[in-house]
Amino acid sequence: MQKEIIIATRAHNELIDITKEVEKIVSESKVKQGLCNVFAAHATAAILINENYDPNLRDDIIKALNQTIPERNNYKHDQIDNNAASHIKAAIIGPSETIPVKDSKLLLGTWQSIAFCEFDGPRSNRKIIITITNQKI
Amino acid sequence: MQKEIIIATRAHNELIDITKEVEKIVSESKVKQGLCNVFAAHATAAILINENYDPNLRDDIIKALNQTIPERNNYKHDQIDNNAASHIKAAIIGPSETIPVKDSKLLLGTWQSIAFCEFDGPRSNRKIIITITNQKI
Amino acid sequence: MQKEIIIATRAHNELIDITKEVEKIVSESKVKQGLCNVFAAHATAAILINENYDPNLRDDIIKALNQTIPERNNYKHDQIDNNAASHIKAAIIGPSETIPVKDSKLLLGTWQSIAFCEFDGPRSNRKIIITITNQKI
Repeated sequence: MQKEIIIATRAHNELIDITKEVEKIVSESKVKQGLCNVFAAHATAAILINENYDPNLRDDIIKALNQTIPERNNYKHDQIDNNAASHIKAAIIGPSETIPVKDSKLLLGTWQSIAFCEFDGPRSNRKIIITITNQKI
Repeated sequence: MQKEIIIATRAHNELIDITKEVEKIVSESKVKQGLCNVFAAHATAAILINENYDPNLRDDIIKALNQTIPERNNYKHDQIDNNAASHIKAAIIGPSETIPVKDSKLLLGTWQSIAFCEFDGPRSNRKIIITITNQKI
Repeated sequence: MQKEIIIATRAHNELIDITKEVEKIVSESKVKQGLCNVFAAHATAAILINENYDPNLRDDIIKALNQTIPERNNYKHDQIDNNAASHIKAAIIGPSETIPVKDSKLLLGTWQSIAFCEFDGPRSNRKIIITITNQKI
């Protein structure tokens, strides 16, 4: 099963919880046992798994990433498109996560949630591809 | 095939080699060709692949991560749970790795091993989920 | 389907676009729907997905990684093998990416390409394992 989630983002850097949307697709897949791949189809966005209960943690993650990869740093790409830092953060976090599935449910830990990471927003049309593979059992 | 590995950790930051435990499950799966997903079901832990032959390298990796993401940095989440740096390191390294399998063996390179990364230990009960998918061949 | 790509690298740190090579294997697989795992079988190399259109961005990514993980930093492993920074960068970026496949094509976004990351080159014989899993549809 393969489905798309389309979301809009509202800030230049933003973490958006998409766990419920992914869980709904996994539930509909009726897959007994397998893997769920969550893939952001963009070179300035990423997928990350972490806690979502405290919204402040999302700000802390963005702050730490921005301190590690500063917005301005004499990047060569900034002469063309002015978003090198967005690309570098996306490359480091990575566009996908692959999560185990059992009985049509994601086997996330108690405090784990799936976040779409926007690093070059706001954008109206960000695409996330969900692929669920089942296995012979 | 889907199995769990449960481990205890002994330090606040610790890399623990779990390659043998994962290889045992892959061997028992009798999968001819496919993928093995190794997933840490925690928001302050991660899975990483690197060399394990020289144990000092584990210390170097932890040192470099702690320099990049300092333990104290006025994180907002520290007012609630005092472990923001643990979460941020887990988010950057990521909870899973997906490794090719052939003839019931992991296709790791000569110097690659699988490490569970504890970033908020010690903990007595850390869960790692191993999912092996086979493919029609 | 499981195939190998062998490449040579020419610099100590280098990003090499392997998208066309991976796409050729995906095309030959004739998989309707599934996942493609791209795995670098080395502890000082990695796989990363990002833009390849502007070659300067590759330099920016390497520069940002080298600023975050400096080549010399009193690493213990340097007393043995003198390449701790290579290992740490490989561990952070990670050895694999898993990409959705539909109708024998990678579902990459417009600006996404797959790069092999050399962090300890030049090397004559770097191995990348491509595994494509199909799903019942």
